[in-house]
Amino acid sequence: MKDRVAGKFIVLDGPDGCGKSTQARLLRDWIGQQGVEVCAYRDPGTTVVGEKIREILLDPVHDPMADNVEVLLYMAARAQLWKEKIGPDLAAGHCVVMDRWISSTCAYQGYAGGFGIEKVIQLGTDCLERVWPDVTIILDVDRDTAMTRMDRQLDRMEQKSNDYQEKVRQGFMKLTEMFPEKLVLLDANQNVEKVHKQIIETVSAGK
Amino acid sequence: MKDRVAGKFIVLDGPDGCGKSTQARLLRDWIGQQGVEVCAYRDPGTTVVGEKIREILLDPVHDPMADNVEVLLYMAARAQLWKEKIGPDLAAGHCVVMDRWISSTCAYQGYAGGFGIEKVIQLGTDCLERVWPDVTIILDVDRDTAMTRMDRQLDRMEQKSNDYQEKVRQGFMKLTEMFPEKLVLLDANQNVEKVHKQIIETVSAGK
Repeated sequence: MKDRVAGKFIVLDGPDGCGKSTQARLLRDWIGQQGVEVCAYRDPGTTVVGEKIREILLDPVHDPMADNVEVLLYMAARAQLWKEKIGPDLAAGHCVVMDRWISSTCAYQGYAGGFGIEKVIQLGTDCLERVWPDVTIILDVDRDTAMTRMDRQLDRMEQKSNDYQEKVRQGFMKLTEMFPEKLVLLDANQNVEKVHKQIIETVSAGK
Repeated sequence: MKDRVAGKFIVLDGPDGCGKSTQARLLRDWIGQQGVEVCAYRDPGTTVVGEKIREILLDPVHDPMADNVEVLLYMAARAQLWKEKIGPDLAAGHCVVMDRWISSTCAYQGYAGGFGIEKVIQLGTDCLERVWPDVTIILDVDRDTAMTRMDRQLDRMEQKSNDYQEKVRQGFMKLTEMFPEKLVLLDANQNVEKVHKQIIETVSAGK
């Protein structure tokens, strides 16, 4: 099983409230148990530059921010994170598990915001060292279930309307249809244990 | 003459110390005398988001920053500036005069930093509403003359080595060769009055 995760870049993504942080934590614990060093970072954030970009992106005072500006800032934070952390980690044979990555930018700014999924991927191709993780698992959740899981203060992205959030969900589905070889869609309305089991199965299959 | 400048976007660019800030001020005065409202903004900066991006870009504490991160941050600051200021100004028939724009990113990160001039322009095409100003004037200056004009504290970009600064100069020349219909190269080793006169001639010719 070790060779399925060593040196691999695994992303859990999906709409707000889909449970990706919880699932990422459970997945990291499981990978650790396989004897592989596992790394996790905050995206956007982690690096000094990335945390400053995160502040700009998530502060409600910056509404309205143009979609193209959001896309560029997310990409910049990722480029720095790749350079300082993810690139070296993977080269050292560690496993990197992130919640959120370029799939989020595709669903939020690309699809829901109207910037275009293809344009986000083009931008990633132009400016990131690597666009696609080894595995991207999209956790699909309906809005009602998602809301019950979000009982904290919402940031600028999370404050957007229900219509926008529904579009984000559609964006993740659309992305999975467009790139079936890159992404796997799981039903995250199920309980935590069931979803975790399916994530382990997906990762174990090397998808 | 009014129709040569009303609703036009004019950029003065070139290596550090080429005198572009001084020349931009003189040009704006002249445009105002033609009876056209003239606007000028700090790039990167001006908008709330742009000023925060500027801080990240110019703070020496952030060295080394990956070239792709620099490019993305400059583009993000510009996208916000276009949305909030430049786009509406031009639509209202004002003239916008900037020192620095995408030509700087081509010369610094694209050529001197090795990211690639073509990739910078591709990125601009993907994510900015408009890549090229109506007129871009490149003020070429040799390094010795430039240094005598820079008697203040240097920021992160200005602190780079003489080799890098020389490459930046070559980058501006290369860019002018690549896009002769978009950029005009002027010899800025001459005195302020002579350079100003040539800038007025260039703008008056609608180049």
